[in-house]
Amino acid sequence: MNRSIENASDRSITPVTPVTPVAPSASGSDFLQLNPQEAPAGGLSDWLARRLRDAIADGSLPVGSRLPATRVLAGELRVSRGVVTEAYQRLTEDGHVAGRGRGGTVVVAPVAVSVASAVAPAPVVPAAGSGDPAGAVFAVTPPGADVFDALRAAPARIDLSPGVPDLAAFPRTAWLRAERAVLKGLSASGLGYGDPRGALELRRAVANWLARNRGIRVDAGEVLITSGTAQGLGLLAQVLRDDGIRAMAVEDPGSLGARHHLRDRQLETPPVAVDAEGVRVDELRATGARAVLLTPAHQFPTGVVLGGVRRRELMRWAGEGGLIVEDDYDAEHRYDRPPVPALRSVLAERVCYAGSVSKLLAPALRVGWMLAPPKYRDALVKAKRFADLGNAVLPQLVLARLMESGEMERHLRLLRRRHRQRRDAMTAAIGEHLPGAVVHGAAAGLHLVITFESAEFADTGLAGAALGRGVKVQPLSWHRQRPGHPGLVLGYAATPPGGIAEGVATLSEVLSEVVPGVRPRGR
Amino acid sequence: MNRSIENASDRSITPVTPVTPVAPSASGSDFLQLNPQEAPAGGLSDWLARRLRDAIADGSLPVGSRLPATRVLAGELRVSRGVVTEAYQRLTEDGHVAGRGRGGTVVVAPVAVSVASAVAPAPVVPAAGSGDPAGAVFAVTPPGADVFDALRAAPARIDLSPGVPDLAAFPRTAWLRAERAVLKGLSASGLGYGDPRGALELRRAVANWLARNRGIRVDAGEVLITSGTAQGLGLLAQVLRDDGIRAMAVEDPGSLGARHHLRDRQLETPPVAVDAEGVRVDELRATGARAVLLTPAHQFPTGVVLGGVRRRELMRWAGEGGLIVEDDYDAEHRYDRPPVPALRSVLAERVCYAGSVSKLLAPALRVGWMLAPPKYRDALVKAKRFADLGNAVLPQLVLARLMESGEMERHLRLLRRRHRQRRDAMTAAIGEHLPGAVVHGAAAGLHLVITFESAEFADTGLAGAALGRGVKVQPLSWHRQRPGHPGLVLGYAATPPGGIAEGVATLSEVLSEVVPGVRPRGR
Repeated sequence: MNRSIENASDRSITPVTPVTPVAPSASGSDFLQLNPQEAPAGGLSDWLARRLRDAIADGSLPVGSRLPATRVLAGELRVSRGVVTEAYQRLTEDGHVAGRGRGGTVVVAPVAVSVASAVAPAPVVPAAGSGDPAGAVFAVTPPGADVFDALRAAPARIDLSPGVPDLAAFPRTAWLRAERAVLKGLSASGLGYGDPRGALELRRAVANWLARNRGIRVDAGEVLITSGTAQGLGLLAQVLRDDGIRAMAVEDPGSLGARHHLRDRQLETPPVAVDAEGVRVDELRATGARAVLLTPAHQFPTGVVLGGVRRRELMRWAGEGGLIVEDDYDAEHRYDRPPVPALRSVLAERVCYAGSVSKLLAPALRVGWMLAPPKYRDALVKAKRFADLGNAVLPQLVLARLMESGEMERHLRLLRRRHRQRRDAMTAAIGEHLPGAVVHGAAAGLHLVITFESAEFADTGLAGAALGRGVKVQPLSWHRQRPGHPGLVLGYAATPPGGIAEGVATLSEVLSEVVPGVRPRGR
Repeated sequence: MNRSIENASDRSITPVTPVTPVAPSASGSDFLQLNPQEAPAGGLSDWLARRLRDAIADGSLPVGSRLPATRVLAGELRVSRGVVTEAYQRLTEDGHVAGRGRGGTVVVAPVAVSVASAVAPAPVVPAAGSGDPAGAVFAVTPPGADVFDALRAAPARIDLSPGVPDLAAFPRTAWLRAERAVLKGLSASGLGYGDPRGALELRRAVANWLARNRGIRVDAGEVLITSGTAQGLGLLAQVLRDDGIRAMAVEDPGSLGARHHLRDRQLETPPVAVDAEGVRVDELRATGARAVLLTPAHQFPTGVVLGGVRRRELMRWAGEGGLIVEDDYDAEHRYDRPPVPALRSVLAERVCYAGSVSKLLAPALRVGWMLAPPKYRDALVKAKRFADLGNAVLPQLVLARLMESGEMERHLRLLRRRHRQRRDAMTAAIGEHLPGAVVHGAAAGLHLVITFESAEFADTGLAGAALGRGVKVQPLSWHRQRPGHPGLVLGYAATPPGGIAEGVATLSEVLSEVVPGVRPRGR
């Protein structure tokens, strides 16, 4: 949140609908009849963002319309310019508006209205029973360790599971070319047992990658190559247990998989609420946990970016002895502006940073990296050694070549283009078929979240019924520890636009079947 | 030990010296003036093997000479033919004699005499101090978890570390060809998160490999792909701990690395002595441990093959509730005869079997497999999932192709040929330069052991001094939990014959420096 929307506006995002002539900018106090007196104390940005979102949802700000300049609107409302900038920023993170350089800030994607208006009273739908083979995946509450395996194994026409990039774009030719070069140049002894920290070539390449892409300055000697963040997290949990740490606080909602991994290593995972600014540091303090797992650049699953105030609060908490585990799982995939710098780049001593190629290339490669704070570095290397004696060497050397040759950045640019198109296809389809859903976190990443904010039903039931119709999605409740609005986590990166549209249309049909009161508006 | 030496005699081994005209067979009671009355009760085979070994060592049975036929010698000594067969078998396992079909059983490698005759009293050499950069690796007792890393990182002209096959022979072209085919045929979804048990293609290929090469019938569903035996062992240890098992007995001498891994998982590792028949099952019982880690096909490091009687005793122990962990690390590399069947092939319910490609292709690939008894199968899969979500997919599919196409067997045949030549080069060099050393386990595998049976000195000091002269070896004491003869574990598979000869010559010089009383005979 440390960049104004104006600064970001040179990075355009593709609008959902064909670019229509930009509507004349509504001006000042007349604009949406905004009255700052309605705002709760200290909540001006929140209030403004909500009012703008409502206006986009009810059509008073249609796709293609331009928002007033921040300076102008701030003057009219007699609020500080930062209030407006912040509100615009939130809508940008959500993927509803985008900077257009001199064209100003433009509405690019519709916001679906809450289903609350359509359902009264909200019907309660139970989770799909185990009698239903498709829904069986979703029948177990809380979901067990094998739930992702079960979901993966379930047959489906359209897979909207989150967490996977466009795998059809995997650079097979470049990979094979790099592998040929590696096999040609590798010494025989390079095929023996290796350094448990990883091949020096890849550690160097990762250090350079992080400098270029994430603002992190690190020496290759500080990089630990892992078999992906899942492994890194497990190893770290082990090391922290040995240091007497018994709990790692996690975001709520937050990754179910990460929670599983921490619990497997006997760490408690007290939940900390996430709001529009990211994790609630006051709640974090209240847990008493000495470590926290965060996704600051793009919160999973909500897509929120950790706000500037929260970052500072968090730094303070860490400065008092807290350890931040920064899961930077998809920070490179932003469509609106450069990603915020990693926390690791400003607080090396108290941040354990984790990244991987799972969202950059393919999860099947099982390669990631970890930068541990000095205190835990040796213990982590030891844990990695005992885990598997270090990653396989050939794929590490291939990756190092792809990273150092610029091939990886080329691929990332390609992915961003394709992912953005798919993101747009999904928000458009949601606008059309699921207007009762609120979209979150569409400005970045490989997935978005939709919530049904006033309806009460089991989203596991919805996901189970969808799977029964051949569409794979994750229920938002999987990623919650405490009750909240039902919703779905929808991956768009790995599915072509046609499949996305069809999948969302199917979700709409399924929704009206399992939650009979809910129907798309206008039908 | 279930094959008579006659049955094995169709597999010739290359003699150490150029084949000399076979000396006329010494006959019956005159042969070496053998008197069975000297043998202790029940120890006839032991006694005979010892007498034969002595005769080879002192030159009364020179390389190239033929032993009497088992039937003839048994008749002369008035012992059962099995006694003679067993004694010959032991010498075969040690690599001193070999079956020659109709040519009979021939001495092919010298046995070095004990240094006892040369040193009186035996000087005690301390382990190299940490002031010596080369020897520092060997200064820590007992050696820590990072000792193999430290040894690997130490510069050396000649690397005689055990555990690595001929890496220069790695089939780079075949690998790249297979990788191209894999990349061409792989679906996009195959690049996503995979089955934590491993790719079905590789699990099938491993099942077929084990059927062809190790007499094991297993379904692909029972195969768990690991990142090598180190990982498999760690995961199993975790699972056993959860089952209330607190100790896994290990062979003594036995692999230091394996012991490190088990202890890291909080398993005790009570030592069980290994003699010429393999692990002492009576000692195993006495430990009270409910699990034991064994290398039955080719004991590490001594090279002993688990004898038939011991196998039966072990089966009985397992039948009473014991769990055998069978580390089949290099069983495919025998030079004298087909490897003994795996214990897993006869006792699936109580044996957890582990294998890998580390000795077949390259440790850098970090791929292995585990067949768990049904009781622990699900828990192991869960442990693997939490460890790293499963192995990387591409290398698995490449390996599957190499295994199913016959490429891997071709490579193994090539390796056997090259390794045997190197084994011969090493035994010849030892015979020439280190006649004071007793050679063990030269009939199979990638390494052999030499001991200095009556001298007392710290073999870590010898290894440290050797490293100071650019020759990398492992001291036998690393692999011991209880005191025993000093010795060295010498890998020959990864070093060309010239390097082996030079390395052993250097060892001889170093030996006479650090243990001044010890000099090669005849100099």
